[in-house]
Amino acid sequence: MTQAIANQTKTNATFRALKCKECGAEYELQAMHVCEYCFGPLEVAYDYTALRETVTRESIQKGPHSIWRYRPFLPVATDNPIDVGTGLTPLVRANRLARRLGLKKLYIKNDAVNMPTLSFKDRVVSVALTRARELGFTTVSCASTGNLANSTAAIAAHAGLDCCVFIPADLEAGKVLGTLIYSPTVMAVQGNYDQVNRLCSEVANTYGWGFVNINLRPYYSEGSKTLGYEVAEQLGWELPDHVVAPLASGSLFTKIYKGFQEFTEVGLVEGKHVRFSGAQADGCSPIAQAYRENRDFIKPVKPSTIAKSIAIGNPADGVYALDIARKTNGNIESVSDPEIIEGIKLLAETEGIFTETAGGTTIAVLKKLVEAGKIDPEETTVAYITGNGLKTQEAVQGYAGEPLTIEPKLDSFERALERSRTLERLDWQQVLV
Amino acid sequence: MTQAIANQTKTNATFRALKCKECGAEYELQAMHVCEYCFGPLEVAYDYTALRETVTRESIQKGPHSIWRYRPFLPVATDNPIDVGTGLTPLVRANRLARRLGLKKLYIKNDAVNMPTLSFKDRVVSVALTRARELGFTTVSCASTGNLANSTAAIAAHAGLDCCVFIPADLEAGKVLGTLIYSPTVMAVQGNYDQVNRLCSEVANTYGWGFVNINLRPYYSEGSKTLGYEVAEQLGWELPDHVVAPLASGSLFTKIYKGFQEFTEVGLVEGKHVRFSGAQADGCSPIAQAYRENRDFIKPVKPSTIAKSIAIGNPADGVYALDIARKTNGNIESVSDPEIIEGIKLLAETEGIFTETAGGTTIAVLKKLVEAGKIDPEETTVAYITGNGLKTQEAVQGYAGEPLTIEPKLDSFERALERSRTLERLDWQQVLV
Repeated sequence: MTQAIANQTKTNATFRALKCKECGAEYELQAMHVCEYCFGPLEVAYDYTALRETVTRESIQKGPHSIWRYRPFLPVATDNPIDVGTGLTPLVRANRLARRLGLKKLYIKNDAVNMPTLSFKDRVVSVALTRARELGFTTVSCASTGNLANSTAAIAAHAGLDCCVFIPADLEAGKVLGTLIYSPTVMAVQGNYDQVNRLCSEVANTYGWGFVNINLRPYYSEGSKTLGYEVAEQLGWELPDHVVAPLASGSLFTKIYKGFQEFTEVGLVEGKHVRFSGAQADGCSPIAQAYRENRDFIKPVKPSTIAKSIAIGNPADGVYALDIARKTNGNIESVSDPEIIEGIKLLAETEGIFTETAGGTTIAVLKKLVEAGKIDPEETTVAYITGNGLKTQEAVQGYAGEPLTIEPKLDSFERALERSRTLERLDWQQVLV
Repeated sequence: MTQAIANQTKTNATFRALKCKECGAEYELQAMHVCEYCFGPLEVAYDYTALRETVTRESIQKGPHSIWRYRPFLPVATDNPIDVGTGLTPLVRANRLARRLGLKKLYIKNDAVNMPTLSFKDRVVSVALTRARELGFTTVSCASTGNLANSTAAIAAHAGLDCCVFIPADLEAGKVLGTLIYSPTVMAVQGNYDQVNRLCSEVANTYGWGFVNINLRPYYSEGSKTLGYEVAEQLGWELPDHVVAPLASGSLFTKIYKGFQEFTEVGLVEGKHVRFSGAQADGCSPIAQAYRENRDFIKPVKPSTIAKSIAIGNPADGVYALDIARKTNGNIESVSDPEIIEGIKLLAETEGIFTETAGGTTIAVLKKLVEAGKIDPEETTVAYITGNGLKTQEAVQGYAGEPLTIEPKLDSFERALERSRTLERLDWQQVLV
């Protein structure tokens, strides 16, 4: 079944083939993502023996302060990747949020401040565009719910690659402007993400472009493994007990899992049973529905939620995410749009982190799982925050309160302060009643 | 003239007094900012002999990946500062922008991705709130043009401090929401920043609050020195030849200068003549006007520009910035609002960095100075980008182009692509004509 893998140009490359997740067929390291035998998704395979022999905690720590310190675990051959400072975002010990929820050891992995475009997508795009350049592509593209378009356009601009991105026409203003500003070609498709994605598959077959999440998907998605590696390294080379992450296509979730597995496999951390819990919005929860109904297949849905960045009705890696949640004794839960807004506010006022709707979903699900007793207060828990709130301002506009308008005079200020304190007291009385 | 400095609680503190920049009078390390003798501004003084003996490049590099690796140069006594990952933002080698401008060695110091709130203000606030806590304050406050309010509210939330911020009522939506979300008390003052600032001085005298940029200003402003330290360290412990930075109050500019001086003084870098050039918006350019008219005093102006974050008509440190630009053989230049928008776009499309109006001002001034022959192409030049474009979307809305709206069909995409390519050719023809 396996094809011979030839022309590995660099000897220090530790990735050796594309391999079908379903039937195990192997392919050369080209731009393709679907198995020709069984139509399963392709994934990058590595030489773990070589990795075990060459990579140490020290060799990683000596590397750059970015995802590229894990280069041997990433599918690029070059020693000169596109490095715009992506990754190694803070793992914040969230004591104030933990107290509010009733947990003892909670961390926020904060990709709301990932570089350069403030979402975890900078990780996957840095990898995909580095690989695209290696494979000779000069135009890069993507089907995006917003964050991916921001990231692809920005990093392509930095690297001097031509860029054309596809988004649903109804995206948040910040995500559209946050793409246009880099001057790519932007196609606003009158349809939902799943329709955008189908169109892009057709375009990818017709044009010689590198679509980061289509024909380059096996390389691209590997970038998310760094969210696993970093948490392990930042916890002092230990794995957490429980992770909570948002589910869109499901890819992020499976790759954090793969990251933990690989670090264990090559001896960088001790093996540990980590529970994986996934977060969806009620308005687009095909994976949570399958989980609840004990199905092992996904029924596609038509998304309708403020959490647009995770609104994928037909998630490519949904079944794999489902499998991981089940076999690790985790959970998949969904929350309503109002709960998502509350999640955004809760994280902001306890930890000073302003996340977008996807992050609000994660925090709301975290809260729901704790309240249902599905996260043990003693577990070291990591919640993944994947994007920045400045991009989805519409979602919380009108729910974050209003400033107190005053004249530039001391007595005007004092009257306003008195009013606000009275209101606060009233708020508290309502809480007590 | 000097007062005895008593009760230094920690022996490892290297800051020893507040000292008047004008008359040299010294004061205890309390919350005050104006000299009682001559009304000059107070600045923190250090024991440089102790610093020279204890701080090395290695000791710094062993420190955290944040501004706190420079703690001995910062005015806090604690070994447990508020560290939310602020600082050590990328120093990007900007080859594509350099080529466009005709420079050989250009770097962007990118605080558009500073943590947690995406502006250089996170540096000064991290220092100010750490010091506020040491001095026993439980409520913190500020007079802000937006970024400072974001940062104070976020870091106060993380640290569990009460917070009340003052902003002009006409700020950009992103800056208002980006403050409200952390649930501080927000006072929107009907007036410009200078009026907000005056009101806050009155409040600071009446309430026992720690105003980061009023009674805590000497500590607060020291945080900006880290923008000097980091550039020196990131250039391999060398100083650049020329820096270009925005001027609002003028504080940032003087503190980058102080940072370079200190590193030279204690032997961490070799001394070098660094030219300092400042950037203002035409609509609020009191320092540039004084520079052009060869005055050594500032005539306050009434601001009217899209660059609201640097719209300070009566800049507290204006004369010091003026002095530095002159004595280093630098320049102070101003640009129009359309040039600021072009500056934002130029940086985005060449380097993939989306900055706010202040950053657009810096890039537009950089361009203007190069075109006027005031920056030598051979100089190693660093442009300081101080904030993120997602906060001032209004400024570029309508100037960044529009997406091409298409149906989710291949032929609709192909027609749109053809149209956009035709338009591009027309654009080029116009350029060639």
